[in-house]
Amino acid sequence: MTDSEEDINRRHKEKAEKRKAFQDKLVSQADKKKHLLMVYTGTGKGKSTAAFGTMLRALGHGHKVGVVQFIKGAWSTGEQKALATFDNLVTYEVAGEGFTWDTQDRARDIAKAREAWVLALAMIRDTSYHLVVLDELNIVLRYDYLPVEEVVAALAGRANHVIVTGRNAPQPLIDSADLVTEMKLVKHPFREQGVMAQEGIEF
Amino acid sequence: MTDSEEDINRRHKEKAEKRKAFQDKLVSQADKKKHLLMVYTGTGKGKSTAAFGTMLRALGHGHKVGVVQFIKGAWSTGEQKALATFDNLVTYEVAGEGFTWDTQDRARDIAKAREAWVLALAMIRDTSYHLVVLDELNIVLRYDYLPVEEVVAALAGRANHVIVTGRNAPQPLIDSADLVTEMKLVKHPFREQGVMAQEGIEF
Repeated sequence: MTDSEEDINRRHKEKAEKRKAFQDKLVSQADKKKHLLMVYTGTGKGKSTAAFGTMLRALGHGHKVGVVQFIKGAWSTGEQKALATFDNLVTYEVAGEGFTWDTQDRARDIAKAREAWVLALAMIRDTSYHLVVLDELNIVLRYDYLPVEEVVAALAGRANHVIVTGRNAPQPLIDSADLVTEMKLVKHPFREQGVMAQEGIEF
Repeated sequence: MTDSEEDINRRHKEKAEKRKAFQDKLVSQADKKKHLLMVYTGTGKGKSTAAFGTMLRALGHGHKVGVVQFIKGAWSTGEQKALATFDNLVTYEVAGEGFTWDTQDRARDIAKAREAWVLALAMIRDTSYHLVVLDELNIVLRYDYLPVEEVVAALAGRANHVIVTGRNAPQPLIDSADLVTEMKLVKHPFREQGVMAQEGIEF
């Protein structure tokens, strides 16, 4: 015997009612405001892109936003042009020195990471920033270019929202974060099909 | 015996050289241009935000972009205000009728999904669009409001980039996609700490 359309619709309604009750309960219990530490990590695409999207959401509301790029080249012309539209609200610092496999000079990478961190600290301590994005900071931490304990301690007393991106987020950072999303690579055209990075999509 | 700073730097340089050679090879092999079908799925945060970020990257380059929101309320004022900056390049259609657990009327949800799909099809067939975002389409497919075969067939012959977002992407869509990222929920402040959605971050 197959179910009638009526049965399907009734069951759907019952399930939907339960789900709504659960959702309403969650929302009613969520009454705290907090300056969030958000981490986008994992090997999949979309980490910096999600950070960029959150920045633009904040900018849409007229909030001040800062970015420090710990690895040069991670963001490209598309982002920069879109951000330029809000240039009075955006501070954009490109502090890193290219991908580490391009520079091949550890001592210099460490010095550059430290320079970037000084810029990041200044933003984090300036409460006029609604949101500070520390792009690819995880890579810097992963190579021990900056001590993770120092970074976590500095992030603890913030009065703004912070997003950290990059694969291999270290455990102490995950532990102190409020929101962590792992972008998992399921399929990637660059790796599997030899498709090049294309304007207006990847840069 | 501990390693000298010199040893550490030398080993780092060797590893970095290998990594660079591998990366260069990948890039040199990636010479194809293709209109990509990109899927952001999973239960974690950042799916629609990454789509939104990609849109703004395309807009930064002056490309035309379309969005169909299959679930009303998924995008909010922050996005809309940011997009308004590029309003001559953006077509934004809010076609869905609220979250399904709010409406509790399956027949009406199906009709609304169909209306949204008609709008989406018109965009996909219009080659002046560089990128079309089908936001929360996965949810519609998951509830069988639209047959996945019909959607996959329609997407096959495109001449633009498409992003589909939403949890529970169906397997036939994943199979036909070029890039799939699963956003995995690791930590969420809303669920765990009772933190409310905050302006300029989540809406």
